[in-house]
Amino acid sequence: MDIAQLSEALSQGDRRALARAITLVESQRPDHRAEALELMSALPRRQALRIGLTGTPGVGKSSFIEAFGLMLTGEGLKVAVLAVDPSSARTGGSILGDKTRMERLSRDPRAFIRPSPSRSELGGVARRTREAVALCEAAGFDVVLIETVGVGQSETVVAALCDVFVLLLAPAGGDELQGVKRGIMEMADVILVNKADGALRAQAERTLADYKGALRLMRHRPQDPEGGPLALAVSAAEGRGLAEAWEAIRGLVDWRRTQGHWARTRADQARHWFEEELRQGLLAVLTEPRIRARMEALGAEVAQGRGAEEAARALLQEIAPGSPRGARSPLDLPGDST
Amino acid sequence: MDIAQLSEALSQGDRRALARAITLVESQRPDHRAEALELMSALPRRQALRIGLTGTPGVGKSSFIEAFGLMLTGEGLKVAVLAVDPSSARTGGSILGDKTRMERLSRDPRAFIRPSPSRSELGGVARRTREAVALCEAAGFDVVLIETVGVGQSETVVAALCDVFVLLLAPAGGDELQGVKRGIMEMADVILVNKADGALRAQAERTLADYKGALRLMRHRPQDPEGGPLALAVSAAEGRGLAEAWEAIRGLVDWRRTQGHWARTRADQARHWFEEELRQGLLAVLTEPRIRARMEALGAEVAQGRGAEEAARALLQEIAPGSPRGARSPLDLPGDST
Repeated sequence: MDIAQLSEALSQGDRRALARAITLVESQRPDHRAEALELMSALPRRQALRIGLTGTPGVGKSSFIEAFGLMLTGEGLKVAVLAVDPSSARTGGSILGDKTRMERLSRDPRAFIRPSPSRSELGGVARRTREAVALCEAAGFDVVLIETVGVGQSETVVAALCDVFVLLLAPAGGDELQGVKRGIMEMADVILVNKADGALRAQAERTLADYKGALRLMRHRPQDPEGGPLALAVSAAEGRGLAEAWEAIRGLVDWRRTQGHWARTRADQARHWFEEELRQGLLAVLTEPRIRARMEALGAEVAQGRGAEEAARALLQEIAPGSPRGARSPLDLPGDST
Repeated sequence: MDIAQLSEALSQGDRRALARAITLVESQRPDHRAEALELMSALPRRQALRIGLTGTPGVGKSSFIEAFGLMLTGEGLKVAVLAVDPSSARTGGSILGDKTRMERLSRDPRAFIRPSPSRSELGGVARRTREAVALCEAAGFDVVLIETVGVGQSETVVAALCDVFVLLLAPAGGDELQGVKRGIMEMADVILVNKADGALRAQAERTLADYKGALRLMRHRPQDPEGGPLALAVSAAEGRGLAEAWEAIRGLVDWRRTQGHWARTRADQARHWFEEELRQGLLAVLTEPRIRARMEALGAEVAQGRGAEEAARALLQEIAPGSPRGARSPLDLPGDST
């Protein structure tokens, strides 16, 4: 593959080049990884507004993204939609069907929609999504929407990738459970109660009030102008509240830029991913089949009462004989003469 | 040190032997670690009820522990109190002053109070606390209270160590922020609103109702008989609600034993700590001063725009030349002939 050519086409906003580049960074073949690394180094540096979006199934994420995305492209903005989905098997409402579930947006020349790959594991998901976001930025998109279905740790990954994290909720009676993991409220910058239309409109307003009440019990965050997430009711179906939501997001972003939170967060996120790559590189040995088998066997013994530390030491000895846990090996680093 | 003798004295409930044993597991000297490992293997296996307790400063954790602990020792139970505190510098209300802040409990022959060591880092805190809990169990204590001040990740550590996790709150007006991290509500099994006495009693009841409302918006948990944490108002000062809280905790524990959650959770926790020891063992190289310096330098470059993955690969090469990230090295494990 001619990486220079691909990089050139991509940086001119060619959507087919963008699609090919994402396919490349998704590949696990070693030669593809090497090319992906080359591509990532060759890209022009541009920044888009990265908006993370989460919400349990049924809250209307697809219709929200379609209506919100069309509003943005209508303002002349270029919008990319990426999905993060660490589960391997999806059922109805699948992200695999992104282009059908967002039919109008997918036909919009200012929009780019990328379905989630079907097979994926979380470590890979984080890096691949991070790279796909960077590719969309290099291709000149103004807004990148990163959608997560809220399986496992995927919100944490998206929160560490985006500038603004949006939690989408459905209207619910005060006693109903919404299945929102408590930690997600901690991460949200903007909470939108969707389906504020027709018979559900009053219920959506009540749900909004319930969440506002719950949010008041939570901790103050320095990166929010009002100390906590913004909360609004919207209707993707009727288009109500979308302009207000966009205004709220832009207001938040402007405030954070002025206060220095924006640049600090981006720098912190970059360092976070560097350290995460380091950790994953060191922990990669634990994914080897034979080591995994040993871990399961020893884990079963530990569950029966064998000491956790002693069992771990035994396996660490097998992995790297002669470098016991905690021992400082005399490393000679290049360029370090002390 | 005669480890067999120490183990023998400890298993007969000798409190001075217990204190010496905890000092031993807290030490970072390699010879002490070896002795600690020997001691841990020699201990009789006993189980106590492990109760984790968290709450922001000012909610009255000390007075609650003193009143609750005295009630339990009054019933003939032996109670140990351990503090988890990953911060190095403590100010007023310090855990270093545990024995003064819980004066009556510390004089009780059925109680054992162990202040938090002053200097500690989190990885070490987890292992040391885990071992201290096991020592208290071996010494025949019925209940081990593990207190965290809620700094950093210490609640996560305590939640993964205990059978029941209690969140202590103070009465607050509906609009007041309590500084509770949202993730903590996810972990709590029992929520107690303290200071339900005097002028604050009505306010405590309102706070309780607020939290019950917020909890209804959260996710159902299989390990709770009613799908979510129990919530009660208590007064450590007047002793009100303490018996009910103890009854609620015992009821929860009995239900979990019957349903199999108890044994499953203990086995899961043991496996978790084994895998954590493994990961920490592999990541230990990143704590070496020269590697830390390289990480900082490269991290600064990444914050300026250098690729996270490429920078990580470069450092991984320096750490372990010839074993690039993702490559599968042909490991010959003892006893593995395939």
